[in-house]
Amino acid sequence: MDTTARRPIVDLTDAEARLKLPLKWGVPEGVIPAWVAEMDYAVDPVVLEAVQRMLADGITGYPIFGWDVDLAESYAGWSERHFGWAPEPAAVHPVVDVTAGVRVAIDVLSGPGGVVFPTPGYNAQHGLAQVTGREELLLELPTSAERAEIDLDRLDRLFAAGAQTLLLTQPHNPWGRVFSRAELEGIRDVVVRHGARVVSDEIHAPLVLPGAEHVSYLSVEGTHDHAVAVVAASKAFNTAGLRCAQLVVPDTAARKRLADQPMSRNDSYSPLGVTAARAAYDHGDGWLASLVERLDQQRTLLGELLATHLPEVRMRPLEATYLAWLDASAYGHDDAAAVALQRGRVMVSSCTSFAPGTTGQVRLNVATSPGRLTEIVERLAGAWR
Amino acid sequence: MDTTARRPIVDLTDAEARLKLPLKWGVPEGVIPAWVAEMDYAVDPVVLEAVQRMLADGITGYPIFGWDVDLAESYAGWSERHFGWAPEPAAVHPVVDVTAGVRVAIDVLSGPGGVVFPTPGYNAQHGLAQVTGREELLLELPTSAERAEIDLDRLDRLFAAGAQTLLLTQPHNPWGRVFSRAELEGIRDVVVRHGARVVSDEIHAPLVLPGAEHVSYLSVEGTHDHAVAVVAASKAFNTAGLRCAQLVVPDTAARKRLADQPMSRNDSYSPLGVTAARAAYDHGDGWLASLVERLDQQRTLLGELLATHLPEVRMRPLEATYLAWLDASAYGHDDAAAVALQRGRVMVSSCTSFAPGTTGQVRLNVATSPGRLTEIVERLAGAWR
Repeated sequence: MDTTARRPIVDLTDAEARLKLPLKWGVPEGVIPAWVAEMDYAVDPVVLEAVQRMLADGITGYPIFGWDVDLAESYAGWSERHFGWAPEPAAVHPVVDVTAGVRVAIDVLSGPGGVVFPTPGYNAQHGLAQVTGREELLLELPTSAERAEIDLDRLDRLFAAGAQTLLLTQPHNPWGRVFSRAELEGIRDVVVRHGARVVSDEIHAPLVLPGAEHVSYLSVEGTHDHAVAVVAASKAFNTAGLRCAQLVVPDTAARKRLADQPMSRNDSYSPLGVTAARAAYDHGDGWLASLVERLDQQRTLLGELLATHLPEVRMRPLEATYLAWLDASAYGHDDAAAVALQRGRVMVSSCTSFAPGTTGQVRLNVATSPGRLTEIVERLAGAWR
Repeated sequence: MDTTARRPIVDLTDAEARLKLPLKWGVPEGVIPAWVAEMDYAVDPVVLEAVQRMLADGITGYPIFGWDVDLAESYAGWSERHFGWAPEPAAVHPVVDVTAGVRVAIDVLSGPGGVVFPTPGYNAQHGLAQVTGREELLLELPTSAERAEIDLDRLDRLFAAGAQTLLLTQPHNPWGRVFSRAELEGIRDVVVRHGARVVSDEIHAPLVLPGAEHVSYLSVEGTHDHAVAVVAASKAFNTAGLRCAQLVVPDTAARKRLADQPMSRNDSYSPLGVTAARAAYDHGDGWLASLVERLDQQRTLLGELLATHLPEVRMRPLEATYLAWLDASAYGHDDAAAVALQRGRVMVSSCTSFAPGTTGQVRLNVATSPGRLTEIVERLAGAWR
């Protein structure tokens, strides 16, 4: 198959979205959902067909346990084409999902010290430090910050005080930031100074928008002995339910420690998820290009809509992901998400789940049709103003 | 649909099995696999079609998070019909697989003391105590024991010495035992005396063979405040790769503790697995009846084949599961599984992975065709005698 052949992004009708996205669209009739990170687009038919073929063949049993050479090579090829860098296939191991991959990496490879979690941070990973028996140390991005950056001085102090792991999310959700190589080198220097570790959640790497470029933390010199990355096709290809992500472990000693674990540490990934990931990595370029084009358009549209309807909303440049972080505090609502739902019938994500104790901000999912995004912002304006 | 309408068990040819069961049949050409617990039968078409319908609808995203009322009610109905007892639906929660369910139950509900693990025990759960940060305490069944039973005196001593959890597998794999109500009451009494907890892995409950009857540990009086069960349709219906089991938590305080956990503790189950489980629970009775009939025949055939070809092999009565535990030590091979593979070209599971330090025993998977089982035992005889 010609992986570069373009396939169009197909918008779902409300009825289709309610059927296909039961979590996101499990909202009361009349509410537009713009919360959880799923897209209102049909799944790439090439990916869907690969999984359907598997079921047509009656394959419902265990996957090959442990390292899967085909999956590893597919990811390496994708990484090379998209990011100009690739791990050796032996470094790439299946896990059930990205958060589970972060968990196993911390459990097995990190010291017992605290986990630094930059906030606002991915809500599903709040509490992950606790799950691994470690202290969660928030590295807070002030609402007032002009640019969303990791505060290296504060990171340095947290490591000096005993933290041993940085949970890096990059591209960052919900900051929308793509960290530059220079920024990553700065992080590396602090980490190395303290002998700490990095777990780099790069699930949004395929969703870097025009103007920015994804740099894998592992492509930065001097990171292999202290870092792993967790990657997946599932976010870009809307297949979270199929259950496969990949843990990239460049260091052979770390690989050995993982291999020596009881299998119950990491044996829950689904063979259907493996197949979906391989199809996306091998044949998904042509669909992804259309998706990124669409998300770029949505980003532009969002900027125009905010300028027109909600000029006091503050939003830093969205460099990646389809998740915009809006500071609506100028409109005076502490729980802006609740007001959006009650008055505007739009479900966005509240800032409190990403940054405890904050107010006036929301995460808005723009991966929908232009018409729905327009309606969403108009409703938000009606609710907040 | 009439859930009682019989559907036949369809044997897979070698070529079909190689396609459909990539783990079990990932053996060199000419080797017959009789190791991992998967069956050489086609999946119940009713279950398969339910999952296929879901993909035809393009449903690949997140499941509903947390409690799923439909799944819970489907399991409760199944449990009532098959076991004469059912938890309230509010007790039934999805997990990605049984071992993950055991893990979360120990992590969240058990004290920090050791985990008692009767051996020979399910190999994938060896080391699970370590994964939860607890000591693994083996409760060994002597090879010479006439009947496979939990030694209550030894259990009592282990609890007295600080153990706080019993990992009960019942029906037991690989003992093949179905514990009676009286036996379970005896276990309960010891557990209650020490204020310990029980995690009851009941994945094989649907595979109790004629002559025995499954008693859920939770149906025994006085167990709800100290026990959970982990159940699944995936073993009986050959759908391990679809990734859903259920944690049954009858105690409301325990449910609250689980609900208060960060979502990353348990959010990896697949919606496809949920659908497969529901289809099995709602519509699988007619297929399961045929399966149990077939496994009963395979059990009888195995007895005849052993009497003819391997009269010195010792095997306790197989009351449930399709996994026979054979003591072949009379034939003088320490690593009987290795000899079976090298000389007989049959892959069985070695006793060492179920009971460290033991010799001369193997676990044999009989869920195949009568022809293949005959060939397997003939090959074992050629290898061992």
